[in-house]
Amino acid sequence: MKVSNNQGKQGSCRTKNQQNKGKMTTSNIDLRSIEKFLCKLATEKVGTIIKTKSGTQQTYDLKTGSRKVDIVTEIDKQVEKLIWDSLKTEYPTFQFIGEESYVKGITKITDDPTFIVDPIDGTTNFVHDFPFSCTSIGLTINKEPVVGVIYNPHLDLLISASKGYGVRINGEDFDHVEKLGSMGPLLLNKSVVALQPGSAREGKNFKIKMATFENLLSCDGGFVHGFRNIGSSAMSLAYIAMGYLDAYWDGGCYSWDVCAGWCILNETGGRVVGANPLEWDIGVDNRTYLAVRGTKRGDEKDQEKYIQDF
Amino acid sequence: MKVSNNQGKQGSCRTKNQQNKGKMTTSNIDLRSIEKFLCKLATEKVGTIIKTKSGTQQTYDLKTGSRKVDIVTEIDKQVEKLIWDSLKTEYPTFQFIGEESYVKGITKITDDPTFIVDPIDGTTNFVHDFPFSCTSIGLTINKEPVVGVIYNPHLDLLISASKGYGVRINGEDFDHVEKLGSMGPLLLNKSVVALQPGSAREGKNFKIKMATFENLLSCDGGFVHGFRNIGSSAMSLAYIAMGYLDAYWDGGCYSWDVCAGWCILNETGGRVVGANPLEWDIGVDNRTYLAVRGTKRGDEKDQEKYIQDF
Repeated sequence: MKVSNNQGKQGSCRTKNQQNKGKMTTSNIDLRSIEKFLCKLATEKVGTIIKTKSGTQQTYDLKTGSRKVDIVTEIDKQVEKLIWDSLKTEYPTFQFIGEESYVKGITKITDDPTFIVDPIDGTTNFVHDFPFSCTSIGLTINKEPVVGVIYNPHLDLLISASKGYGVRINGEDFDHVEKLGSMGPLLLNKSVVALQPGSAREGKNFKIKMATFENLLSCDGGFVHGFRNIGSSAMSLAYIAMGYLDAYWDGGCYSWDVCAGWCILNETGGRVVGANPLEWDIGVDNRTYLAVRGTKRGDEKDQEKYIQDF
Repeated sequence: MKVSNNQGKQGSCRTKNQQNKGKMTTSNIDLRSIEKFLCKLATEKVGTIIKTKSGTQQTYDLKTGSRKVDIVTEIDKQVEKLIWDSLKTEYPTFQFIGEESYVKGITKITDDPTFIVDPIDGTTNFVHDFPFSCTSIGLTINKEPVVGVIYNPHLDLLISASKGYGVRINGEDFDHVEKLGSMGPLLLNKSVVALQPGSAREGKNFKIKMATFENLLSCDGGFVHGFRNIGSSAMSLAYIAMGYLDAYWDGGCYSWDVCAGWCILNETGGRVVGANPLEWDIGVDNRTYLAVRGTKRGDEKDQEKYIQDF
């Protein structure tokens, strides 16, 4: 659901003068101060709830029908409300899109500054206490992800970024150039890829996904070193940015699954394109994604080749 | 390779009197003292090497041929030697089986006390710095896993157990009865299962594996909540014991992949059977495994049903 709230406390990120100038851009909004605010919100408020309630929700809804496994709990809704309330108090003129309040066909991303939020990414993890549920809070301006904050309270791992200001891990600047310099070449048949089957477990898309998994693994196909599935799009993107994974391929997820991670990945030289061939330039709401890590300096062309080989 | 070394320092786990009595059993060997020794070895010696060298091995061998992805690095071999040297000094009469020194057709598990060791479980994780490589050290007596120690230095997570003495997480007793009491019922279509494709990426077994993955996920098949792949058999078993996953199904792995985790899982009410139907009683070297978590008190029959439904 798209939310516009012009009342209440004035957003700390913009001066009154800036508000009067009309369209907001990344040059007149203090992205770093927003990142800091989101980090505080994620670690001090949201993380505690996720950690305390993980594994306690034995009643949940299958929100997309009996033939899909798309779980939502009461806690997802409560955490989204908490985040939304905090954000609209601090940034009253910004739009808000959240997983739980999204309305299909109604909610649209505009050029306005828009928080795109998955209150608990990895809800199945959350229900089963698998320690990879996290909160994922992104900000877009002109539809581009420009701030991203992901916090996994089980690992006490906070990854955050702002466009042009790099990435921080638990508040410390992350030297992605050094990390990428220590890694092997970015080649499909030497890579480890994050793959998730999703919640839709029948029909053409499910079949395509499973066939793609097999083809990527097969020695007559991509012959990747391996795949990993940690059950969270946000954590998969964070792990690519941190240099733990090479890529993540998925179809069927949403803007709130990828928005924060997209910004974080961009800041480490990574790139997000569509999951299908030739989709080089996509929006954050594309629904299918291929995210690929950066490369050593001098090897930048390997990234485009990797995407083509995929 | 099976190692028998009757020289050197006398094993601290047996008195001279016990040694003279002949066959060793779990009743005349101090399993807890062995567990403590292995924990110290894993955390103080092995863990440091795994953490420091993770992601640094850009040269590695594909040990099973060009059409399989079975990676081994020099560090695997060095760590196995370090563990073996420590163990034969402390427990000179015990046998030793390790991943790197194993010889197909020669190495056999006997009834003797035998350390079964994967120096670095999750070698692909180790090569790619995915933070789920670990060391896995088990002990069998009469071919039964009776001590298990798994240490993941990236998460600083130590899981250990001895037969009859329960499980410890980072040295603290783990209350598996309380954890199982808080979990939902053990049902196939409400479970999350660890699955790994393995290194053999062609032929009948690979096809069976991929078809089983699809069938488990499909809404017309097992319709499980999800699967996870963290690239380490030992960590998958540890996570089941900790109540983060419900089961782990695999074919093609070895005794050193499962020995330590098997003991840990048993101590939490879990069970390991063969991966194929009706294989209820298997040896630690069965090569195919289905590991399933324990249940709430009173729901013990659910475990057998889960195995039958799988």
